[in-house]
Amino acid sequence: MSNLLSSNIFYNTQHSPLGAFASFTLGFKGSKGGLGLELGKPADQNVFIGVEGDQRGQFGCLPFYESVLDESTRFDIENAGGESNIRLSQIADAQISRTLTPGTDTWAVSTADSQSSAWSFTVHAPVMTAPNPATATDAELKLAYVPALTAELGVDNTGSASPRRVIFGFQNSDIYRQMRLLDDATSEFGTGNSQGIVGIATGDSVGIAARARGGNGAQADGVQIWSAQGFSAEAILSEALPFNRAFGIGSVGLLVAVIPAGAKVTLRFALCFYRGGVVTTGLKARYFYTRYFTDLESVAAYALDNFDALRDRSAAFDGRFAASGLSDTRAFMLSQAVHSYYGSSELLDVELNGKLELMWIVNEGEYRMINTFDLTADQLFFELELNPWTVRNELEWFCRRYSYIDTVRFPGDATEYPGGLTFTHDMGVANHCSPEGRSVYEKAGLHGCFSHMSHEELVNWAMCGLAYEHKTGDSEWLATALPVFQDVLTSMLNRDHPDPAQRDGVMSLDSSRCAGGSEITTYDSLDVSLGQSRNNLYLAVKCWGAYVGMEALFASLGDTERAAICRDQATRCAATVCASANTDGLLPAILHENVPSRIIPAIEGLITPHVLGLTNALSDSGPYGELIKALRRHLSAVLKPGICLFPDGAWKISSTSTNSWLSKVYLCQFIAERVLLEIPLARQETADAAHTAWLLDDRNSYHAWSDQMLDGVARGSKYYPRGVTSILWMT
Amino acid sequence: MSNLLSSNIFYNTQHSPLGAFASFTLGFKGSKGGLGLELGKPADQNVFIGVEGDQRGQFGCLPFYESVLDESTRFDIENAGGESNIRLSQIADAQISRTLTPGTDTWAVSTADSQSSAWSFTVHAPVMTAPNPATATDAELKLAYVPALTAELGVDNTGSASPRRVIFGFQNSDIYRQMRLLDDATSEFGTGNSQGIVGIATGDSVGIAARARGGNGAQADGVQIWSAQGFSAEAILSEALPFNRAFGIGSVGLLVAVIPAGAKVTLRFALCFYRGGVVTTGLKARYFYTRYFTDLESVAAYALDNFDALRDRSAAFDGRFAASGLSDTRAFMLSQAVHSYYGSSELLDVELNGKLELMWIVNEGEYRMINTFDLTADQLFFELELNPWTVRNELEWFCRRYSYIDTVRFPGDATEYPGGLTFTHDMGVANHCSPEGRSVYEKAGLHGCFSHMSHEELVNWAMCGLAYEHKTGDSEWLATALPVFQDVLTSMLNRDHPDPAQRDGVMSLDSSRCAGGSEITTYDSLDVSLGQSRNNLYLAVKCWGAYVGMEALFASLGDTERAAICRDQATRCAATVCASANTDGLLPAILHENVPSRIIPAIEGLITPHVLGLTNALSDSGPYGELIKALRRHLSAVLKPGICLFPDGAWKISSTSTNSWLSKVYLCQFIAERVLLEIPLARQETADAAHTAWLLDDRNSYHAWSDQMLDGVARGSKYYPRGVTSILWMT
Repeated sequence: MSNLLSSNIFYNTQHSPLGAFASFTLGFKGSKGGLGLELGKPADQNVFIGVEGDQRGQFGCLPFYESVLDESTRFDIENAGGESNIRLSQIADAQISRTLTPGTDTWAVSTADSQSSAWSFTVHAPVMTAPNPATATDAELKLAYVPALTAELGVDNTGSASPRRVIFGFQNSDIYRQMRLLDDATSEFGTGNSQGIVGIATGDSVGIAARARGGNGAQADGVQIWSAQGFSAEAILSEALPFNRAFGIGSVGLLVAVIPAGAKVTLRFALCFYRGGVVTTGLKARYFYTRYFTDLESVAAYALDNFDALRDRSAAFDGRFAASGLSDTRAFMLSQAVHSYYGSSELLDVELNGKLELMWIVNEGEYRMINTFDLTADQLFFELELNPWTVRNELEWFCRRYSYIDTVRFPGDATEYPGGLTFTHDMGVANHCSPEGRSVYEKAGLHGCFSHMSHEELVNWAMCGLAYEHKTGDSEWLATALPVFQDVLTSMLNRDHPDPAQRDGVMSLDSSRCAGGSEITTYDSLDVSLGQSRNNLYLAVKCWGAYVGMEALFASLGDTERAAICRDQATRCAATVCASANTDGLLPAILHENVPSRIIPAIEGLITPHVLGLTNALSDSGPYGELIKALRRHLSAVLKPGICLFPDGAWKISSTSTNSWLSKVYLCQFIAERVLLEIPLARQETADAAHTAWLLDDRNSYHAWSDQMLDGVARGSKYYPRGVTSILWMT
Repeated sequence: MSNLLSSNIFYNTQHSPLGAFASFTLGFKGSKGGLGLELGKPADQNVFIGVEGDQRGQFGCLPFYESVLDESTRFDIENAGGESNIRLSQIADAQISRTLTPGTDTWAVSTADSQSSAWSFTVHAPVMTAPNPATATDAELKLAYVPALTAELGVDNTGSASPRRVIFGFQNSDIYRQMRLLDDATSEFGTGNSQGIVGIATGDSVGIAARARGGNGAQADGVQIWSAQGFSAEAILSEALPFNRAFGIGSVGLLVAVIPAGAKVTLRFALCFYRGGVVTTGLKARYFYTRYFTDLESVAAYALDNFDALRDRSAAFDGRFAASGLSDTRAFMLSQAVHSYYGSSELLDVELNGKLELMWIVNEGEYRMINTFDLTADQLFFELELNPWTVRNELEWFCRRYSYIDTVRFPGDATEYPGGLTFTHDMGVANHCSPEGRSVYEKAGLHGCFSHMSHEELVNWAMCGLAYEHKTGDSEWLATALPVFQDVLTSMLNRDHPDPAQRDGVMSLDSSRCAGGSEITTYDSLDVSLGQSRNNLYLAVKCWGAYVGMEALFASLGDTERAAICRDQATRCAATVCASANTDGLLPAILHENVPSRIIPAIEGLITPHVLGLTNALSDSGPYGELIKALRRHLSAVLKPGICLFPDGAWKISSTSTNSWLSKVYLCQFIAERVLLEIPLARQETADAAHTAWLLDDRNSYHAWSDQMLDGVARGSKYYPRGVTSILWMT
């Protein structure tokens, strides 16, 4: 591993079931991780993972907790808590190493300190194809969508003549719910329910379970394991009487295992999440997994019954990942990104017009907006690799409910011209589904952040639809989507110019929904270089890509008229862009408006022909050769310190802003390297190291993967799913 | 109003629907109130209640918010929020007055400042008989249990030639949910859904609604009202475009009304709460109100449709309250106590053995333990006045699921003797129902807080059962309860002494569940004077009261044998207590153990014969005249500064502790005044003023009503339901 990566291993990573909007987040020191459900941030719980040393009662733990007030004083107000012979201490950094892949995260504790035995803790996340509920079997669906993760804790006690205790648990941080024993309702306390399961949970929401005896997922012979609850880990471990394990007002829950002397064992745990009933407003929906699971207990039972299969769900992807030959830094960034993507994933059964309709959601990280379309367009590459049906599902929801038909206006002129079909920025926020035809984000009358993204989302639909069709050849879908493509084309043309003769392939009119304001792009918080949609270079090339893709689609369907229009528009667009070049070859961020900014995402739109396999369109000698050459020249010119590079070599997407976006950097790196064939390896590595350093920075690493970095600090778009553009590195 | 009460009107009060475990808490300055569901504390939200002054855009508001960071910077990370011509300012204290009753809380704003028009804001809470679902009609049940409150905001704009805006709303503080418009899913934004309702809500959980047009509960003619959402109240009020009212990522929601020039109107609002689906663990239960309401929207519609009936639900009780002639301080304390009682109330439909069983719960304030039995025994008097069926329901659940049969031990001796039936301390915590026969609180092996309360809860069952039977004459229940009374008697005898000849009427053996520890009383955090059960004077007199009551019960049923046993035990107990008196007439807190403490709750047990109408047992010339005289002498002797009075005249329940409990003080005041006929009025008023000052103290008044006061500071038992012992003052 590179020095950079071993320099800070204490960054948070999200470990998440598929589609459960849930994360077991771990890695940042202190009370900064834990089991979070439907949150836009870590659960901020104390997590206790530790092994008793050679000295009885002394536990060495991973550093994922902070000492807290003795809660007993809330009840016994005159007396402080009692003394304890138990001590938890945090293991020294030097004894801890970490190995992260998309599917696993392993913490290994070395024996440097003779007080401790060697042990390791691994969490497994399901980085796998999310099966399509329309076609998969119940068995496949349960295995994929059970809202549970597995974890293993391996302890080598072979050198010891004494048994050794192991703990795994957490302290509740939920103000609504209380810690409880998962097995207390059905058994003697802490000794396992009728299925031999012991566990701890906060209310009906999240918990950790293990099998104490019998059946699959049980512990190794001779290992005892029980659940226990108390005001602190120390108090629990001090308890002599089993009766007191079910101390129901304690906020700390632990699973306590005893490893026999001389044994080497791997303990098995299931991390479980659950939310039943209707979980949304605006529309009424339930989690898909509630088809199969009735509560946390049933999730735990299934997860332990199928422990090995759950644990191994990411083996295929991790194998491919290992074989892909990524550099250490890219492997790290991709792993973090994939983890955070799944942490935002959510699969619902929506009640709509008396029927159940599936809804695949990627929540927008800390903001939790539902299927923000400009994120969908970037997550596209990952979803097409793993589960293309989710792309279709998103596109269908945008058509069915999150589209509108507008008119358009020239800036400063209230005259309305025909606009057309377009799509909302998002479908709601934090499990509130916004009304038909409305996002939660877009406002009227603005020229910056929170304005409409009508044209951006229109092009995103085209791009996602084209890529989905190309990847899957889903003709059933195409039959329903063809009229949409036709409307999208009409809408794009109308946004260029009402007079066909005056069209230049570039957006010139804003949606009347802006009420005189200006549309913005996905780069909403950036300056005008990337923020404004009209005449934007980034959006222009994205439109070019969409025209090129639609030309091929319409041509393949025999619609020569529309194919010709698309080709004509792409040609006009390319010409407009090429004509805008300065004498030094630099392209202006905003065409025709004398804006001094230079932007890397000028090249973003090249991705569409690339994923569609339209290599001729990307060729220097093809019909758009001049555009390709102009963009290459532009990129070469801007990738310099003082323009679009930070001093450390990190990519700066706009020359006039220090706000750089990692998801877009990954995408543009891919285009630069693999489409424009431009970037030497050494420069890649310098940039990757700088980007990795951002994510590892102590100011940022609490938030797992984050997108917007202002001078290297994650100031927005934290805990974010969009970094999976990095999947392109593996293709 | 007394000077004391006008000295601090900014104390929190809980406004709560019946049985919804919900509170709209308001009164403490700052971001310290709001709409809380299932919380053990206020929701800590900004609440905006204000009226536009004569200067347009300048709003005078009640002081229930704090200025917060402009949230737009989370999204638009480089830019601060825009300027606004709107200013909210907090009205000066001198212009605000407050009138609190059990059923209403009115804030009146005077016109001293010519900038503002006179206005007032009133919240109505349903202090009413909670109808018995077994016998009431659906119409009665919906009206009583709808999880909604009404509020009115009266504005006098007659002196103005301009319209004036009024705002009522809040800022979301829930980490799971987001603010939304209640009407956005079904209407043009902010203009009312198909039922003419506008509203704001956080997710599926809590909200405020009003009727904009049509039907019952609508606003007066000419008044416009709409809902709106944004990053701040100022941002919302600055919005010119109605489209932007549905800005779904803003955390502030407001209802904005426009009062026409020259009009005097009363705006009407419904405060709504909802939680659907299974809400418990351990047992599976749903809120009773989900029989009638499917979501927050249906709650809002019903509440507005039935606005007047909802508003007037407390009229009968408030009339009785006004007529009761309570002093200002007692009226205040009783009002606060009743408000906090309902804030902890919860009515569930429990799935049990394939049937739905009702469960009435009083949660334990900040601790949220379910039906803590030693609180039930104090809340008894209130519940018998308003809804005796809730007492039966609690007793039945204790019999059905929260009882156990133990053996007992002498201290320091492991020999086990027959014990018998007794009851758990509680039924769980925070919607987790503890296992059969177990509380969440009680541990083995302890001599103090968190030990078992076996004997205390046993006597509590007897006391509650006797009082319920006496109040209702419920013969159906008595038929099922008689065997329980018989078992309770046996169990009490066994805890006195295994050898009948050696019984002295006082508890001498601890439950073996203590595993060698000692049982404690409800005064769990107090010193030995009230903490220890064995030989405790408080518990002894409570047992005496139960024996006296059971004697009458068994005699009335012709069970002369058990009646004689009870009489014999009561006589022995009385003799034991009387014999313990020192030469100065003081009774020791712990009999036979040379403890120097003196306690006021020596007299608590007299309440049982009193509520049973057994006046002869309380007469100086009756069979227990010596006990009555001894207790009166004791009380007289201890109610002195340095013993059981604080310097300011507040009651100090134990001479050796500064931890005094208001619920118990109220109960003992009642006994002292009305049973022992002992306390002159002037001394009452001094004490009442001191107790009132505790509740009004800025260190305490955030927590609404609290019980345990350590040197006058609420250090435990905050936000607590138990103060309704004060209902006895009204009898």
